Amino acid sequence: MSDTRERVVRAGIVGANGYIGGELCRILLGHPHVELVAPVSRSLAGKRVDGVHPNLRGLTDLTFTAPDDAPDCDVLFLATPHRETMAMVSRWAGRAGVLIDLSADFRLRDPAVYRRYYGAEHTAPELLAEFVTGLPERHRKELVGADRISVPGCMATAAILALYPLAAAGLIAGRVSVDGRIGSSGSGSGAGPMNLHAERSGAMRVFAPLGHRHEAEVAQATGLDVTMGATGVEAVRGAQVVCRAPLATEVREPELRRVYRECYGDEPFVRIVAQRRGLYRLPEPKILSGSNFCDVGFALDAERGEVVAVGALDNLVKGAAGNAVQCLNIRQGWPERLGIEFPGLHPL
Amino acid sequence: MSDTRERVVRAGIVGANGYIGGELCRILLGHPHVELVAPVSRSLAGKRVDGVHPNLRGLTDLTFTAPDDAPDCDVLFLATPHRETMAMVSRWAGRAGVLIDLSADFRLRDPAVYRRYYGAEHTAPELLAEFVTGLPERHRKELVGADRISVPGCMATAAILALYPLAAAGLIAGRVSVDGRIGSSGSGSGAGPMNLHAERSGAMRVFAPLGHRHEAEVAQATGLDVTMGATGVEAVRGAQVVCRAPLATEVREPELRRVYRECYGDEPFVRIVAQRRGLYRLPEPKILSGSNFCDVGFALDAERGEVVAVGALDNLVKGAAGNAVQCLNIRQGWPERLGIEFPGLHPL
Amino acid sequence: MSDTRERVVRAGIVGANGYIGGELCRILLGHPHVELVAPVSRSLAGKRVDGVHPNLRGLTDLTFTAPDDAPDCDVLFLATPHRETMAMVSRWAGRAGVLIDLSADFRLRDPAVYRRYYGAEHTAPELLAEFVTGLPERHRKELVGADRISVPGCMATAAILALYPLAAAGLIAGRVSVDGRIGSSGSGSGAGPMNLHAERSGAMRVFAPLGHRHEAEVAQATGLDVTMGATGVEAVRGAQVVCRAPLATEVREPELRRVYRECYGDEPFVRIVAQRRGLYRLPEPKILSGSNFCDVGFALDAERGEVVAVGALDNLVKGAAGNAVQCLNIRQGWPERLGIEFPGLHPL
Amino acid sequence: MSDTRERVVRAGIVGANGYIGGELCRILLGHPHVELVAPVSRSLAGKRVDGVHPNLRGLTDLTFTAPDDAPDCDVLFLATPHRETMAMVSRWAGRAGVLIDLSADFRLRDPAVYRRYYGAEHTAPELLAEFVTGLPERHRKELVGADRISVPGCMATAAILALYPLAAAGLIAGRVSVDGRIGSSGSGSGAGPMNLHAERSGAMRVFAPLGHRHEAEVAQATGLDVTMGATGVEAVRGAQVVCRAPLATEVREPELRRVYRECYGDEPFVRIVAQRRGLYRLPEPKILSGSNFCDVGFALDAERGEVVAVGALDNLVKGAAGNAVQCLNIRQGWPERLGIEFPGLHPL
Repeated sequence: MSDTRERVVRAGIVGANGYIGGELCRILLGHPHVELVAPVSRSLAGKRVDGVHPNLRGLTDLTFTAPDDAPDCDVLFLATPHRETMAMVSRWAGRAGVLIDLSADFRLRDPAVYRRYYGAEHTAPELLAEFVTGLPERHRKELVGADRISVPGCMATAAILALYPLAAAGLIAGRVSVDGRIGSSGSGSGAGPMNLHAERSGAMRVFAPLGHRHEAEVAQATGLDVTMGATGVEAVRGAQVVCRAPLATEVREPELRRVYRECYGDEPFVRIVAQRRGLYRLPEPKILSGSNFCDVGFALDAERGEVVAVGALDNLVKGAAGNAVQCLNIRQGWPERLGIEFPGLHPL
Repeated sequence: MSDTRERVVRAGIVGANGYIGGELCRILLGHPHVELVAPVSRSLAGKRVDGVHPNLRGLTDLTFTAPDDAPDCDVLFLATPHRETMAMVSRWAGRAGVLIDLSADFRLRDPAVYRRYYGAEHTAPELLAEFVTGLPERHRKELVGADRISVPGCMATAAILALYPLAAAGLIAGRVSVDGRIGSSGSGSGAGPMNLHAERSGAMRVFAPLGHRHEAEVAQATGLDVTMGATGVEAVRGAQVVCRAPLATEVREPELRRVYRECYGDEPFVRIVAQRRGLYRLPEPKILSGSNFCDVGFALDAERGEVVAVGALDNLVKGAAGNAVQCLNIRQGWPERLGIEFPGLHPL
Repeated sequence: MSDTRERVVRAGIVGANGYIGGELCRILLGHPHVELVAPVSRSLAGKRVDGVHPNLRGLTDLTFTAPDDAPDCDVLFLATPHRETMAMVSRWAGRAGVLIDLSADFRLRDPAVYRRYYGAEHTAPELLAEFVTGLPERHRKELVGADRISVPGCMATAAILALYPLAAAGLIAGRVSVDGRIGSSGSGSGAGPMNLHAERSGAMRVFAPLGHRHEAEVAQATGLDVTMGATGVEAVRGAQVVCRAPLATEVREPELRRVYRECYGDEPFVRIVAQRRGLYRLPEPKILSGSNFCDVGFALDAERGEVVAVGALDNLVKGAAGNAVQCLNIRQGWPERLGIEFPGLHPL
Repeated sequence: MSDTRERVVRAGIVGANGYIGGELCRILLGHPHVELVAPVSRSLAGKRVDGVHPNLRGLTDLTFTAPDDAPDCDVLFLATPHRETMAMVSRWAGRAGVLIDLSADFRLRDPAVYRRYYGAEHTAPELLAEFVTGLPERHRKELVGADRISVPGCMATAAILALYPLAAAGLIAGRVSVDGRIGSSGSGSGAGPMNLHAERSGAMRVFAPLGHRHEAEVAQATGLDVTMGATGVEAVRGAQVVCRAPLATEVREPELRRVYRECYGDEPFVRIVAQRRGLYRLPEPKILSGSNFCDVGFALDAERGEVVAVGALDNLVKGAAGNAVQCLNIRQGWPERLGIEFPGLHPL
């Protein structure tokens, strides 16, 4: 139960008009310790928030705030595009003590890696060290009291959570291939031929056969040699990774299960899904829409020395907005599930 | 905020393995005043509840209860097929003080109408008068303390809520045509050619060109002359009705809006959605998945004397499980939104 | 069998880059008596045709032609937006003896009706009388040798074919409501928020609750009092109409069937689909993708004096490009099925 | 143009009621040199073919033939489940000179491999050597005049065609991972929970994380060390493989392109799709529905020595029925494209 004496935190969202911004609005409006005071949007300033996020009708009468009109906040979520974020982070730092960035700009520790994957020079490399990686399952302690948090990419989160137990246990030797699949909301709310319904519907679009940007995050977080591709499949929400890795040593299924349980047995938002039978025996995004769970699972070919790790999540929730709020909860010392308890729907 | 001194109500669900049963499980597991003690399923007795409702993994370790093993409860939800429900209602009445029926068996007041629409003789007509219609927007007062509640059909709920304000204001003269559209979850979790993915996917299946069973409920609730058809469209969740009616009198748009506002201005789960512009200017089920909202809207052709009323909801929530819990909340005198606050997702 | 001595007709398509234009390309490239000499596109002039119509890879090396570079043709298909078409029709008339217009501009006989439904003054009313309506089932004789053909709208075609037999037999008395449902390709290949995948996916968008533009065409063709609305449903291709009408007289099912058979018994592209049982017992667009069939069916409530007529087609084929080619075949005296034999797929 | 003096071949289909059987019906009914005389189905004998294949309405009045009533044919297509096929092949061999098997039973040369992948002893190993692999791109010469043809699996065909050029050129060193994605029609027309629309819709179901059965075919055909998994994604038709392989040697993009061109430059049904830009720059099944094309493409990470090969096809056409007819065309010396010219649709 929440402590009702808890001081309410005043929150703002920069880029509140986008899909991640919308999920932040939804979650924060329902969060008992947070007041959403500044849904910032340059393009929609003055317009009703529920105009572009129609699921919020009846929940709020807020209008979008112009950047210059945004009041000071306790915490600011930056749901802005990469490159744009690093350009404006210093300005926003003056408006709020806590910055939680959902862009890619402060995820990679090494500016050279950023340049390679994002094709642009990092313009604020001196700030990189200030950011704690917003992945509670790996950085929970550092998140307590952190003032700069950088939330990982959606498919990166799934892949890191799926692979980390194996990597940490030293079970992987050699290159890991990560095959990511993602719904259309992953490319944002901007209209273009890429996301035209008639083109995107029913797609199996291999938009990144190799070298997907999240590859760098997965490699950084796991220390593995990672090659990653990604395909847009028919879905609005949802990200899934299928990771194929050569085993370093002989291992049996119960040992793998133990390795995952030791990592995630107490985690509120990671479930181990690796069953022998059933329609949902491995992680699947479809039942995670709206939920902050990341499901992880595995399968083993002991004979050939290969393991497959599977991860799934809602790219806008555990892959973005929900994970960011989980980080905030930890930072504040609040119960970790606060505001992000929704378990997902079945069927959907 | 919930009153934590409130006594917890012990609830059971008969037919807990189906899709409506699964939604009842999800909602009741998250309800602060309810303990789910008996998820009853004959076919799956002893199996884990999260085996068929995988979204509940990590939320419960419950297994399904065999009918004969079900403990006494305070309230029993009957999520069983029509005909089967009326055959066993007396037996279940001995197990719980409160019965909330989600089947069709106690919706129609007149057994002759039941026979006509369901092709079977009603076997418990003497019980019909005991049931209060589980539609809070129309029967809130009767629901307080009610021990027998019959929840309306999903498309019927949408149509009744969309049409009632017009009917009550005497604005409709003549036959109303109701065109219902529904997702595949509406026909339940049984596997058959009808719901085979390859056949049902992308369908616009006019499974009831006219005389749909919910027609009788809509007529009963509104007093209108209703003709209703229904089409299965590509969706898992979601029901929508488009109702076309001749106007009894000249009327203008602001008056229509006022009529709706007077009916629903204070309703926690009905939103009036009738905008001039925008992608979601009229009710659409897509943004209602998991939500207990029923959105209603209208459009007017003043010149030709015609009004179109549109209603949308999640067939498993406001069209079934969520609505049933709303009724329970009212019956108990609890805050009406308890356990059914989830607003729905966008995009989805 | 085609007569191989037949002179090849040189064809051009204005607006060859759009979705209807693409279907015209596909069909004409496979047509034994036609040579596609001018796929005209202002915006894509010089670019490969298979760049935007990737299904044509390996079938053609054509590039788009700039309007000014288009050679003289025997026949020109105008697949351009309404308003734009009437503005340029005279110019194109100088380039080809035969014009087949797929826009809305020459469908309505009365310029006042055009103004009312399209919100603009008709700029070439003097040409209206020159155009034969490109609906073979109603105007086959007039199409022979016609030099100006105006192809009806997609939902209009379905509704006219579904309703005409009833109207002609004098079976309808009173207002007919037409409920149209359409896939996303119906709104063209332009990218905008309306057709953003995340918004359009899973939609049941009542974009026209009443007064849909095709209403005017259906009324003109059938002489009925028609009220028409339309909903965008989840599909890329496909249009369906469900038409509800009061009967003028007592009628029984065999008589209705006879009425339809007399109209369409010999039609190569209209099938009567009105079965008692089966998943596809009434017309459904899903099995018509790529096909030039329009399926029509009906259901009767004799007791209440109501008939429901259902029509379905592929909006880009029988609703546009395929129908246009059928008209060309008739005009030329070729076998009517030439180039448009593809029957559609199941499952899809 | 077809030679009209060509003797018509009398064809039968065993298992004509299934999805592959339906595609065979569609294609053979439109094939100028084939007469479909025996659409065999035990369960539906006597019922109309267009009852379960509604796209064939108006094209045929055929009814299904009981197995015992099937007349002698020139060619029999066996579209029956694996294990069942090998049990009855000898019986059917007495009814037709030519057998074209679409099951898995005669694909693998080594009965031990069959046992390992299909979990059953091969019951007709003595016949294995009689079958020519029905993959024209690799076995065209052997197919001429062949009387026993075994058509490869759908994803196997895509993977073999995508990988073979690289394998033959000796460019791959080490284990190749094949990630297959497939629509719901791939698991047949039988109704079960697996293919229930509400469960299968929007799925990313990793039904085979590793050791998918087609792995054995791909390894056999390419000589590579292959590990293969498969995921059911939201689609009815369509199969895609993304194959990731370590390069044996340094290679550049133009050389890869040349390798593919040398293999497939003259192939009527393989297109090389590997563009720098565009929505469809790599193979995608969506635009292949109904088509007999297999599109193959590639991407290179020269720096890390990795190549990705992508293949896509319609699992029921080039992955089954269409490919079988292509084999028949070759066997008979007919033009290879006969009856399977349909190019696919865009958009769809």
